[in-house]
Amino acid sequence: MSKQDFVVPAGKRFRLADHDTAFTGKLDKAQGEKKLEKARERMRELQEKLYAQDEWALLVLFQAMDGAGKDSTIEHVLSGLNPAGCQVFAFKAPSAEELDHDFLWRTSKCLPERGRIGVFNRSYYEEVLVVRVHPEYLDGQKLPRGLVTEKIWEERFEDINAFERYATRNGIAILKFFLNVSPDEQRRRFLARLDEPEKNWKFSAEDCSKRDLWDKYMAAYEDMISNTSTEHAPWHVIPADKKWFMRATVAEAIVAQLESLQLEFPTVTEKQKKSLEEARVMLSKKA
Amino acid sequence: MSKQDFVVPAGKRFRLADHDTAFTGKLDKAQGEKKLEKARERMRELQEKLYAQDEWALLVLFQAMDGAGKDSTIEHVLSGLNPAGCQVFAFKAPSAEELDHDFLWRTSKCLPERGRIGVFNRSYYEEVLVVRVHPEYLDGQKLPRGLVTEKIWEERFEDINAFERYATRNGIAILKFFLNVSPDEQRRRFLARLDEPEKNWKFSAEDCSKRDLWDKYMAAYEDMISNTSTEHAPWHVIPADKKWFMRATVAEAIVAQLESLQLEFPTVTEKQKKSLEEARVMLSKKA
Repeated sequence: MSKQDFVVPAGKRFRLADHDTAFTGKLDKAQGEKKLEKARERMRELQEKLYAQDEWALLVLFQAMDGAGKDSTIEHVLSGLNPAGCQVFAFKAPSAEELDHDFLWRTSKCLPERGRIGVFNRSYYEEVLVVRVHPEYLDGQKLPRGLVTEKIWEERFEDINAFERYATRNGIAILKFFLNVSPDEQRRRFLARLDEPEKNWKFSAEDCSKRDLWDKYMAAYEDMISNTSTEHAPWHVIPADKKWFMRATVAEAIVAQLESLQLEFPTVTEKQKKSLEEARVMLSKKA
Repeated sequence: MSKQDFVVPAGKRFRLADHDTAFTGKLDKAQGEKKLEKARERMRELQEKLYAQDEWALLVLFQAMDGAGKDSTIEHVLSGLNPAGCQVFAFKAPSAEELDHDFLWRTSKCLPERGRIGVFNRSYYEEVLVVRVHPEYLDGQKLPRGLVTEKIWEERFEDINAFERYATRNGIAILKFFLNVSPDEQRRRFLARLDEPEKNWKFSAEDCSKRDLWDKYMAAYEDMISNTSTEHAPWHVIPADKKWFMRATVAEAIVAQLESLQLEFPTVTEKQKKSLEEARVMLSKKA
């Protein structure tokens, strides 16, 4: 299994059953950790160029079941970056104000500025995940009745694809990660949160109730990934049962995406060069 | 000179002449770097508690002349933090939309959420610095004529103090740093930016023009610090000629501020404990 195998090709039916949640290839943990460290270093170098060039932005988006490791992946993969060029947004249940708007409103406001890396912990994809599993949530969205038909999920896929196409055309590269955890591994992690008093706060009994809906969620994920893995913004399905493998794989995918942008420090024009030389004369006089 | 000496007492006339920009105490560079590393580690631990407790927020605000090291201090002091709990905002010349609002509008929107560290690279203090040195900028603020009187700076100090008092009363602790660089050291750093092609982009010839106004800026800083160093939000005046000393001192001040909040992981109530136990039973059954 090569790196490319984590990327879901556009237009192909995606099946979770084809993806091993515990996959680690030929890597062991120590090698994985070394890969992560190397990728983090390279990421820092590339971030500096991204920031200096101030043309591209990168949106990194995470979707997953609870306990798959969204928070800890964000922490371990991205905490070496310059915080001036990296912003993380977590999207929870929408507020009353947010429900009074179209479904892309709250996330659009948080798209990264040029030169920055923006991270979404959950995203507009919740609109075809939790809302699909709980269609009663649609009522809270106050959509004009006639607009909610059986085609609504298909329409949302189309709207999301068009939105992402627009964003990439405007210099926002998009990386989408589905952290693919097994229900067994999720249970182990939930129990660990119960056992460690310092992790208790991260656990809510509600998290368990979603386990009963596991199959419905997986069906929603499969349909979502099949319909929104596009040329411009493919999904990456990351085996998540081994945290060290997940982190290294996510970090390397981010580096590969940044490398593909062929970032360069801005070149100084002849006119700027002249102005810099004038500045040098000015500064030297006052020495 | 002890740590406390960097903090400007409330109600006292502050004089820049009393502050040595090249101060490093009895520290050498290697010791300073060790102090920075230790403070960064402690900051990470405290950030985790801040985030988990989700009550306090911390606003860290930087003001300084160009070249004093705002950007690089933010990078070196804060880049080890979990980016999910740290947001940096840089405030440049206000946009047309921003000028159509009151002067605290654009920064208020960016105040940190509970549990987070927010960083302002420049801030509402520009309203009594660059605007004071260039009073013609006031015209662009479209204030009703009668409201712009000779008391405007005094009024702004009062409004800022009241705003910060309000913020701290609502759980946003405020740390204000003035990075105090000498004009000679600034010149050296500007020349270094001209010499290194990879740093050229960070330099604009405009930066030099402000040097002619150095004394006016320093007078504005003195008056600002004298009038807005308060019990609830004192100014820290950090010697900035030696970058390693500046970084270590800023990092230690942030740690001291976080320590003073007496952060704790949230305690679990009896009711929550019961619910967690139920969850454990539920999870164990499915093993």
